[in-house]
Amino acid sequence: MRILVNEKGAQRLLARHLWVFRRDVLSGPEEPGLYPVYWGKRFLALALFNPTSDLSVRAYRFRPARDPAEALLDNLEKALVRRLPALEKEPEGGFRLAHAEGDFLPGLVVDYYAGHLVLQTTAYAWEALLPQVAERLKPLAKSLLAKNDARVRELEGLPLYVRPLLGQAPERVAVKEGRIRYLVDLTGGQKTGAYLDQRDNRILMENFRGERALDVFSYTGSFGLHLALGFQEVISVDSSAEALRQAEENARLNGLTLKTVEANAFDHLRALEKARERFDLIVLDPPAFAKAKKDLERAYRAYKEVNLRAIKLLKEGGLLATSSCSHHLTEPLFYQMLAEAAEDAHRSLRVVEKRGQGWDHPILLNHPETHYLKFALLEVL
Amino acid sequence: MRILVNEKGAQRLLARHLWVFRRDVLSGPEEPGLYPVYWGKRFLALALFNPTSDLSVRAYRFRPARDPAEALLDNLEKALVRRLPALEKEPEGGFRLAHAEGDFLPGLVVDYYAGHLVLQTTAYAWEALLPQVAERLKPLAKSLLAKNDARVRELEGLPLYVRPLLGQAPERVAVKEGRIRYLVDLTGGQKTGAYLDQRDNRILMENFRGERALDVFSYTGSFGLHLALGFQEVISVDSSAEALRQAEENARLNGLTLKTVEANAFDHLRALEKARERFDLIVLDPPAFAKAKKDLERAYRAYKEVNLRAIKLLKEGGLLATSSCSHHLTEPLFYQMLAEAAEDAHRSLRVVEKRGQGWDHPILLNHPETHYLKFALLEVL
Repeated sequence: MRILVNEKGAQRLLARHLWVFRRDVLSGPEEPGLYPVYWGKRFLALALFNPTSDLSVRAYRFRPARDPAEALLDNLEKALVRRLPALEKEPEGGFRLAHAEGDFLPGLVVDYYAGHLVLQTTAYAWEALLPQVAERLKPLAKSLLAKNDARVRELEGLPLYVRPLLGQAPERVAVKEGRIRYLVDLTGGQKTGAYLDQRDNRILMENFRGERALDVFSYTGSFGLHLALGFQEVISVDSSAEALRQAEENARLNGLTLKTVEANAFDHLRALEKARERFDLIVLDPPAFAKAKKDLERAYRAYKEVNLRAIKLLKEGGLLATSSCSHHLTEPLFYQMLAEAAEDAHRSLRVVEKRGQGWDHPILLNHPETHYLKFALLEVL
Repeated sequence: MRILVNEKGAQRLLARHLWVFRRDVLSGPEEPGLYPVYWGKRFLALALFNPTSDLSVRAYRFRPARDPAEALLDNLEKALVRRLPALEKEPEGGFRLAHAEGDFLPGLVVDYYAGHLVLQTTAYAWEALLPQVAERLKPLAKSLLAKNDARVRELEGLPLYVRPLLGQAPERVAVKEGRIRYLVDLTGGQKTGAYLDQRDNRILMENFRGERALDVFSYTGSFGLHLALGFQEVISVDSSAEALRQAEENARLNGLTLKTVEANAFDHLRALEKARERFDLIVLDPPAFAKAKKDLERAYRAYKEVNLRAIKLLKEGGLLATSSCSHHLTEPLFYQMLAEAAEDAHRSLRVVEKRGQGWDHPILLNHPETHYLKFALLEVL
């Protein structure tokens, strides 16, 4: 039982890209599962396979192994070992334990929230392995929830469900992050509950002091909570009343105050500009404007507009903490967009730090899809 | 007395680029000096001006000022204030106090080596201001040396000389960097004496432990000294016997051992590959292969070759610490080159950290020439 790919598919795997699309598969088993991939007689990789998915082949190892399932679970073990020092140092923290392709675990995400684990799978072959995955995660887990309700699973022919795999997950859990605690809604939240990829960027905000900070696209508090430690006034802007209600709850939990504004970010930035308001620090953490490649041009303009407006609202020497989580807006495009926004605003932007997704969301240069979050800290002069 | 520029020059300054070339200057004073720049009746900037240089106009401020010289020296003051906390924390360290355009001080570089200062100017208008510059630097300086022997000064019509401006600089000074001390040759070394832009990247090396590390293009020890704290064997490769002699002297100063190899880096990497040698960590800190834009294609191939060879020499899980200081090899090209090297080597590269020049070498997004150093820490899998 093996997968045969054409030359195009073979070249991708030889270059250590992890994906081969169905159109480049010459033949393969009828059942989803773990199989070796060959180009003629040449072994290329071990892969998760789903004959009915467009993304048929997802490689996880480039050397043969006697037991393909054991080799895949070894990758999970390696991913856990990489996180252990952080978990030991911050058992009440939030970390990504398995970052899919970035950890050679295609289609598997596992997040850790103060001991409570949430798992998502988006490749068919994981479904049969869930008991073994749970077994490996058991030593770290007070509870383990499979939050398999993402619509992308339908493309794989997988059912949507949320169910406990180990113990019983509490509805909400308090997670420590730097000098802040915040509540994570394990069952109802976006993604697996929080945006762990920005953790270290949020903690970075604790370094700054000043009068007024603005947190745009604030979700349930996130950046603003850390800013409230050092700024006299923090305004959190979001279009979701429910997110802002949780932001206020998180603020109370920390004995802090956030001034929340339920508004469209673009409209509100325009209103602040008209009112000649000025800030010492502005955070922009927008949702992915470019979800697909065809949206890129429109998304580029939207990112540029929101950054341009923020630049204009900053005092001389003020800080802009700006990000994009659209994979399609590549890092070079992100910095080009920022340079253009600065040029149009007739302000200079000095780089304080270029950052991205945290270390627990690893990036493979050979598989660019693993890189999606850009984060820049810039001084406006 | 004012400089008049054409629309093209004006658009550059409005976009906060700092340079206007002579071809875009409509009229200006006959003497070099500090003057306001206008587009018709519109004030654009204050600038250092040299009518005979191709790079005629170098802006340093985008608002008018009563005293242009005082405004320029204010920028120096601001640059010094930014460095003060670091100097107070590490008075025996090495820091860049003024980073030319990145600090709105076009053509002025000042480096600090444990209290001894070295200055370089490459714009004509600084020449008359040197006494005031020395006055501002005096509180920080045990000595101040003008190391104005760079050939680029000839393009400005400036003489080449090395002379003390304050006190008497010792020939060599010991600089502290992380857990290491190294000797800087203030009068004879390359640039102003050391490569301070890589300081924090070198200190990063102190985090790693292992058996064998290789430091390619090692110069006077630099990365290798920090590696020798944690690795059983460190091999330093450089083509300069004199640099290696100093590397050995620096190693003795720290009670460490470096194994030095005088060789062409490309040849030596090939020889190590042939001998099937393997390393846990390899540092690549090559000179600028692309000094001019026309060299870029050849330079790209050279960077790729040296990285490809290093990747092949690394054990599974080994670390590649690789850099480029060519401005023309932009950050996107640098990562494209690394991805291609990884693909050709059939190895996966996982990003541990993307870095660049240190914080004391600030980058302006509006003036891309301020960004030149790329540094990536990658895990080879």
